[in-house]
Amino acid sequence: MRFTKMTSLGNDFVFVDGIHQNIHDPNRLAKFVSNRNYGVGADGLVLICPSQNADFRMRIFNPDGTEAQICGNAIRSVGKFVYHYGITRKTRMRIETIAGVKVVTLDVKSGKVVNITANFGSPILEAAKAPVITDLEQFIDQPVEVLDRTFHVTAMSLGNPHMVAFVEDVDHFDLEKYGPAMEHHPLYPERANCEFAEILAPDRIRFRVWERSVGETLACGTGSCASVVAGVLTGRCNRSVDVEQKGGVIHIEWDECTGDLFMTGPSTVVFDGEFVEGNPYEENAPWD
Amino acid sequence: MRFTKMTSLGNDFVFVDGIHQNIHDPNRLAKFVSNRNYGVGADGLVLICPSQNADFRMRIFNPDGTEAQICGNAIRSVGKFVYHYGITRKTRMRIETIAGVKVVTLDVKSGKVVNITANFGSPILEAAKAPVITDLEQFIDQPVEVLDRTFHVTAMSLGNPHMVAFVEDVDHFDLEKYGPAMEHHPLYPERANCEFAEILAPDRIRFRVWERSVGETLACGTGSCASVVAGVLTGRCNRSVDVEQKGGVIHIEWDECTGDLFMTGPSTVVFDGEFVEGNPYEENAPWD
Repeated sequence: MRFTKMTSLGNDFVFVDGIHQNIHDPNRLAKFVSNRNYGVGADGLVLICPSQNADFRMRIFNPDGTEAQICGNAIRSVGKFVYHYGITRKTRMRIETIAGVKVVTLDVKSGKVVNITANFGSPILEAAKAPVITDLEQFIDQPVEVLDRTFHVTAMSLGNPHMVAFVEDVDHFDLEKYGPAMEHHPLYPERANCEFAEILAPDRIRFRVWERSVGETLACGTGSCASVVAGVLTGRCNRSVDVEQKGGVIHIEWDECTGDLFMTGPSTVVFDGEFVEGNPYEENAPWD
Repeated sequence: MRFTKMTSLGNDFVFVDGIHQNIHDPNRLAKFVSNRNYGVGADGLVLICPSQNADFRMRIFNPDGTEAQICGNAIRSVGKFVYHYGITRKTRMRIETIAGVKVVTLDVKSGKVVNITANFGSPILEAAKAPVITDLEQFIDQPVEVLDRTFHVTAMSLGNPHMVAFVEDVDHFDLEKYGPAMEHHPLYPERANCEFAEILAPDRIRFRVWERSVGETLACGTGSCASVVAGVLTGRCNRSVDVEQKGGVIHIEWDECTGDLFMTGPSTVVFDGEFVEGNPYEENAPWD
């Protein structure tokens, strides 16, 4: 079985062409390839499959083998993958995910994909759908007490639940302390991905993310979108913002007419690989 | 550049054929390939090179780019690598390392290398060479106070400094507490790799390791040898022992005639890889 390791802003995934290869147990494969000591090592597995109603279908699996809905860095990498390996010549394509069909656009220079833009659709701001437990219709810049501090929180869904709080000096913010407490706050019935963001300029935000069930990660695509939405709604930033994370910088555009969010950034094809000693996930594998 | 990821007892390395490929900055390459988010992800880089006075020369580099002396799991994997990829047809070979020339023997069944044995030479028991600061000639089963406990410690060098203490119920032993304190104990001028071992039977030991500068790891080849040497010297085990670690089981034999230590166990060729977007470590790499 052939695969490709790609990385975008420190989010790394194993991509497998499921169009020309037959993958019959992706959950088990995801556990194997994600394992950093016995497998390839990744934040998850991404399968590129044929689609009935779009150009391609993307399936994404967590390191524990469960199927995830979507990941912004992964779907942008899928766009680069299918172009880079000649599976398509389109530079604008529709990719089906569990969270709906997303449009991905490639910026190609001298035959190389230098940047990929994904349209993330509109944020869902209705509090009940974020979801957050409140009588308010929207939950914007609301005070929330977490341990010994009060944060002003904006909640929304981008297919997955997010909350954003603006802080000063995010590099020295005690994320290990407040991240888990915020994630499990009784306001969020499904828990939340928590972004703590610092405004550097109206067109530049820096944030750190505490991902639901995971903890701090190097980057979060939907979290970048959420940070900009919260910044715009509270008058802190513009609609076109460079967003800094530990893993790198990404550009977010929140279109005023359509309400759509566009995320633009690079992705790197690190290496191609091929399993050697059989298809190890087929056997009585030691990593189970 | 082509490479291979191999794993042995949870120790995973990137192996690069430096005989047929020209590698001009292995220190920098090691930093890149070892990075688990931006590179391949490994405990280090192993280069297989030509040798003037042995069959092959192995160079091993830490994730920080510095060159290491030797690693038992890596040198056994080198034996499998050169046979598996047809670089040699020998099943017994001499491999040059910074720590001297080591003999590696392959157990081949139906053309596949199922087990690899490495001769680790003799342990150095002179306390001054372990090194440990003491008036004793050898440091065997000596009481050492660490925080609130007294351990009985046997110290030796296997090219790198080791100390072994026997404990009960190693699975529940508080390694995070006592490991760093033992590593930095003033008795060890160069610090030490610390093994905490439990005797399961005279021919079966289970241990956990706190590696110098690293912390707990899944397995340590020289640590396995040290545990058996300490067990034999203190009358706790035989000279032929199966050694359990988190990463798996390895067999250690301490030859009574020659004093040599032999380590036997498997190694898996997980995948072959090839870098795609240039030789990324040559460029202005984001992982620096």
